[in-house]
Amino acid sequence: MTVAESTTPLYRTPTAPLHTRVADLLSRMTLREKVGQLNQRMYGWDAYRRTRDGGFELTEALYAETERFAGLGALYGLMRADAWSGVEYGTGPDAASSAELADMVQRHVVERSRLGIPALFVEEVPHGHMALDGTVLPVNLAVGATWDPGLYERAAAHAAAELRARGGHVALVSALDIVRDPRWGRTEECFGEDPYLAGRLTEALVRGMQGEGERFAADKAAVVLKHFAGQGATVGGRNSTESELGPRELHEIHLPAARAGVRAGAAAVMAAYNEVDGLPCSGNRALLTGLLRERWGFEGLVMADGLAVDRLARITGDKVSAGALALDSGVDLSLWDEGFTHLEEAVERGLVSEEALDAAVGRVLWLKFRLGLFERHSAVIPPPSGHGREVSTALARAAVTLLRDDGGILPIPATVARIAVLGPQAATVAHQAGDYTAPQCPGTGASVLDGLRRLAPPGTDIRHARGCTLTGDDISGIPEAVAEAAASDLAVLVLGGSSARTPDTEFDANGAARTVVSEMTCGEGVDLAALRLGAAQYALLDAVVATGTPTAVVLVQGRPHVVPDTTGALLTAWYPGPWGGDAIAEVLLGLAEPTGRLPVSVPRSVAQLPVYYNHKDTEYGGYVDESAEPRYSFGHGLSYTSFEFGTPRLSGRTVEVDVANTGKRHGRTVVQVYLRPLLTSVWPRTLELVAFEGVGLAPGERRTISLAFEVPLGVSTAEIRVAESSRAALTAEPVVLDLRV
Amino acid sequence: MTVAESTTPLYRTPTAPLHTRVADLLSRMTLREKVGQLNQRMYGWDAYRRTRDGGFELTEALYAETERFAGLGALYGLMRADAWSGVEYGTGPDAASSAELADMVQRHVVERSRLGIPALFVEEVPHGHMALDGTVLPVNLAVGATWDPGLYERAAAHAAAELRARGGHVALVSALDIVRDPRWGRTEECFGEDPYLAGRLTEALVRGMQGEGERFAADKAAVVLKHFAGQGATVGGRNSTESELGPRELHEIHLPAARAGVRAGAAAVMAAYNEVDGLPCSGNRALLTGLLRERWGFEGLVMADGLAVDRLARITGDKVSAGALALDSGVDLSLWDEGFTHLEEAVERGLVSEEALDAAVGRVLWLKFRLGLFERHSAVIPPPSGHGREVSTALARAAVTLLRDDGGILPIPATVARIAVLGPQAATVAHQAGDYTAPQCPGTGASVLDGLRRLAPPGTDIRHARGCTLTGDDISGIPEAVAEAAASDLAVLVLGGSSARTPDTEFDANGAARTVVSEMTCGEGVDLAALRLGAAQYALLDAVVATGTPTAVVLVQGRPHVVPDTTGALLTAWYPGPWGGDAIAEVLLGLAEPTGRLPVSVPRSVAQLPVYYNHKDTEYGGYVDESAEPRYSFGHGLSYTSFEFGTPRLSGRTVEVDVANTGKRHGRTVVQVYLRPLLTSVWPRTLELVAFEGVGLAPGERRTISLAFEVPLGVSTAEIRVAESSRAALTAEPVVLDLRV
Repeated sequence: MTVAESTTPLYRTPTAPLHTRVADLLSRMTLREKVGQLNQRMYGWDAYRRTRDGGFELTEALYAETERFAGLGALYGLMRADAWSGVEYGTGPDAASSAELADMVQRHVVERSRLGIPALFVEEVPHGHMALDGTVLPVNLAVGATWDPGLYERAAAHAAAELRARGGHVALVSALDIVRDPRWGRTEECFGEDPYLAGRLTEALVRGMQGEGERFAADKAAVVLKHFAGQGATVGGRNSTESELGPRELHEIHLPAARAGVRAGAAAVMAAYNEVDGLPCSGNRALLTGLLRERWGFEGLVMADGLAVDRLARITGDKVSAGALALDSGVDLSLWDEGFTHLEEAVERGLVSEEALDAAVGRVLWLKFRLGLFERHSAVIPPPSGHGREVSTALARAAVTLLRDDGGILPIPATVARIAVLGPQAATVAHQAGDYTAPQCPGTGASVLDGLRRLAPPGTDIRHARGCTLTGDDISGIPEAVAEAAASDLAVLVLGGSSARTPDTEFDANGAARTVVSEMTCGEGVDLAALRLGAAQYALLDAVVATGTPTAVVLVQGRPHVVPDTTGALLTAWYPGPWGGDAIAEVLLGLAEPTGRLPVSVPRSVAQLPVYYNHKDTEYGGYVDESAEPRYSFGHGLSYTSFEFGTPRLSGRTVEVDVANTGKRHGRTVVQVYLRPLLTSVWPRTLELVAFEGVGLAPGERRTISLAFEVPLGVSTAEIRVAESSRAALTAEPVVLDLRV
Repeated sequence: MTVAESTTPLYRTPTAPLHTRVADLLSRMTLREKVGQLNQRMYGWDAYRRTRDGGFELTEALYAETERFAGLGALYGLMRADAWSGVEYGTGPDAASSAELADMVQRHVVERSRLGIPALFVEEVPHGHMALDGTVLPVNLAVGATWDPGLYERAAAHAAAELRARGGHVALVSALDIVRDPRWGRTEECFGEDPYLAGRLTEALVRGMQGEGERFAADKAAVVLKHFAGQGATVGGRNSTESELGPRELHEIHLPAARAGVRAGAAAVMAAYNEVDGLPCSGNRALLTGLLRERWGFEGLVMADGLAVDRLARITGDKVSAGALALDSGVDLSLWDEGFTHLEEAVERGLVSEEALDAAVGRVLWLKFRLGLFERHSAVIPPPSGHGREVSTALARAAVTLLRDDGGILPIPATVARIAVLGPQAATVAHQAGDYTAPQCPGTGASVLDGLRRLAPPGTDIRHARGCTLTGDDISGIPEAVAEAAASDLAVLVLGGSSARTPDTEFDANGAARTVVSEMTCGEGVDLAALRLGAAQYALLDAVVATGTPTAVVLVQGRPHVVPDTTGALLTAWYPGPWGGDAIAEVLLGLAEPTGRLPVSVPRSVAQLPVYYNHKDTEYGGYVDESAEPRYSFGHGLSYTSFEFGTPRLSGRTVEVDVANTGKRHGRTVVQVYLRPLLTSVWPRTLELVAFEGVGLAPGERRTISLAFEVPLGVSTAEIRVAESSRAALTAEPVVLDLRV
């Protein structure tokens, strides 16, 4: 085919079935062009530079890359503008200019491609599209705490629309990793420790971002679900290392979220860095092809994690055979690797078949057709105006979890005249966001101090002292904080960790800005052995509590930390995003109910790891120096009101229960349905979450909730227990399910 | 057949092939009699009571048990006389009377059996035969530290001879469990973290205890290797819970010792309590039958762990089906369970076939024939006189491991006039032994204080102060210890843990006895989360170090504990047995060389678990708050001299290396051969121990050592590195092995 060809080729016919367009296009391509489609080598920020007049120009690096394979398969992170990419605030593409840049790059790619094949623009969307001034959502662990797939689906839809409006197509989203060891720095990217909860939220993510049907709407993006598989199971919570899991543990705990995502129609999954019982995921044909494609029927794309293909050279000896192994195993699209650039040679040497390569190319092309890239190079929708803050705050609000309230000091009564807002997380916005967060326009967001100032009753005297640094042992600020606490009716002490990779701008009590550099304590590659906050924070906590002033501790964190049981009230907001301070203030003040429920167990100490509720039913008695039970259990979260559950009733595989709000305030509980296997083919877990639903009730209101559930394979009889937490389920009245007839 | 039958039946013909005797006997047995052979219900100490004249009489409980199935398959722990059995010192059978008791019981069993089938007497022999005044050896972890299979083989032979002399037949010995998490209380029962080292020692155990050939010599015992399989891999080091291991990890780490033991001819293995990836070992046919019997060709007996069969009722619903599941999976002989008493019903209900039952009975009978029990009911050998102490001390001596000697304060120079021997482990014998240890005749053994007093140069002033208790935080004795340290030229501070289940008798500086009760910190069911010594011991350590007196810390312990790097010298003796104090004193004084090498990694803190040298090769960079590297690595141990290794040379799968003693004293190093996989089919470990040999050399002596090794499956090329420890191997000069031709 040449440009002089007169009739429109089939692959350019918008109305033709997509698979016929794929086949037609594939048949016209050279081996070299095909290999180009499987490569995603460049960092997007190397594709452009800023001009003096504030515009963009394309780089020689981009020219060279498109020249190499006469086109470009995919481009990673064109809009990424965080510390990792080295793009400073103001120099990367912002909300106004991203679409223009994307269009400029795409036009270049299509021009360089003999067949006019556009590139996929692949972006980081771990909790919102991580481009300059994109809407930053709470991290996944906070999403897990909402137990609200519907709410998350709306947030995901918002993120997809933002992405598409800026010219992006494909969203990389952590969803599949299950927390089994919170030392892992990517704990914040997980929906929690439970496969069912993660599966429900993964479905919501896919529905929200992609919508339905083969052809994506203009405001919908393709999701790459990461990571497949078992990445949360690496030993010691060590990032991208080894997992020793057996197939049953893998299937029961680490695969259900992926299965749910595939069933919901996810366009792609990312093969994980880690290995499972000896096989690195990128080179694991049984996993990527045998299970994912052949058994689950997945027709989408498998993307490698960054440089994961090249890593295979450790066992294959060179990058050519590493690329061949990855492709043969089931990887379609590489990320930054050299290995996939040598696929021509690999085919010629017989290391991999051209059929396998064609299949991979076909999957890349199919996604491009599904996204309509051959029809519209540019973004055709406007940015979803205005409600990013609303979406983000709603998730943050729903995630705030009240772990303890001894003495009932919350919600803050109207009689409180003076509040001391203390701690290194009290007046910061940047540390409320998680890892990957792109710099935000100064002034975006609200700290806890901001939120309390804005929302507390007029006349409330709100004071602030930081008290100490987030990391390290600088306790010089403690006396000031103690003085404020002692002089106040209530102290709100905001402690936590940080996944911010850039210096943070904080504002002091007078609104003056200062730059604060904290070491990261969480995030990708930031694994924390002892699960402890910075040492000074414990000193501050002790000092504030010693004043005797009622104290509510709020933890802003990307993982559970070990915190002593010394205060009146304890909340966790996880990383609630830029407007998290508003959400936390609303809950503290009782303007919103605390509705979050723990998506992970909170350990008493690192010495008792692992702790998760769905361990095997072994009736272990504990260590001689430590319980084996967590400090707070999966599913736990208090309300400002109280709920009562009736005796559950079974009808087939549906359980019905009456739920009543027996307190004096409106509230929302999460009805949690646990299954406790009795007769089984394998050793059972003590409990497994099999259904849940959030239920909002007015004081005195009673409602019957009906929830369908699935029964794990091999279970003949089981108890069904309905409760407000996994610990409560241990003593809840069961109803017996008998499937033996 | 009746007693009136005139000709000798085949099964009673000593010269007939044993399998024909088994078949003949089996053909004469009723189903009920067969079921009886598979049961080991009674505790041995319930079979007898003491008479007023100091003799024994049999109990109604024994009569009832032998009546029930007209015989007795096996009797557990007839000579067990520790706290667990409730038999107090002096009331159980001692060295002089055991054989008589065993004979009395056996005569009764044979009389009650229509066919005259004797019982197996099964005894605990975890580190020596744990009967009153049996020779207590160092625990297995100390045996692992010797890296000396030959020495251990001699010790095992001694233990077997003691067992048989007392009328016992079958020795239960932990050998197969691999330490992967030292929180586990049974860490002391393991040979260490390495499958190859454990395999070599397991072979030595089998050879030493059993000898060779189908028919056991009169001084040889049948070994039950425990536990099969993966018990060291339970999550969190939690005893007898769940392991999530995949088959590759199981095969590479947890099965090699069993494989080695089976190859060496072990008579029996014990199915472990734990489950592996969902299947409890006692109900795991793939493990007990598919792997062990069919693939490995094991023809011996599979015994259940105590009540492990009944535990299966958790998933089968009742004990009848639990027994059927265990038998069908491959368990031959139960331990204390009810489940196996119902096997007649299980056969009648079709839950298990009579063929499967016959096969199990045949294996029990074969072992009885192999042991010659039909020919000689009574013990026919005298006790191996005298050298128990020598054997035990030799193992203890070889195990003492010098971890650090900053400032070269060891060996204690002759110029040292006054030594302060301090710490809660300094003057105790009972706490030097591990779990399961039966009470010993008062005065047996030597504490570190005893050893130093006996062995130090005449005129050395040796003082003692305990300083603090082993557990708890009683620090009232610290001032006295500090005063002694300050006034001495050298302090020997003996700290550690305890697996003693009985109150200990300690002797103070004046030789006065006192009874000390310590909580157990180690042993079966005593898992320790934080890996910390009793709190007071750290205070004592700090206080003694602060005196400035050169201090050698000696750890007497059943697992690695976390100890700060604050002192000049640090040694571990593990639990060295009753005469451990002599062995430790010899090394401290330079009368013996420190030859022990770590069989486990010593962690820096519990927060970095797991630590073992043979992790996967992922180049993990460590936690932000902690290294991922242990404090001391597998294989580490200093000498009083120094060694140099030449460049290794390969010849096929044999490596040759020149080893020289470059120091001024005689010494023994352990030449450790590590393989580092290069081209492999699966993700490789960083290093794997594949061969080792202890080499004693005089000062200046040089010798060429030649060691054969095996290569892991799937490895095409590898580096071979020879070094004195796993850490040294990381930087040792490699030689490349290429198997691709």
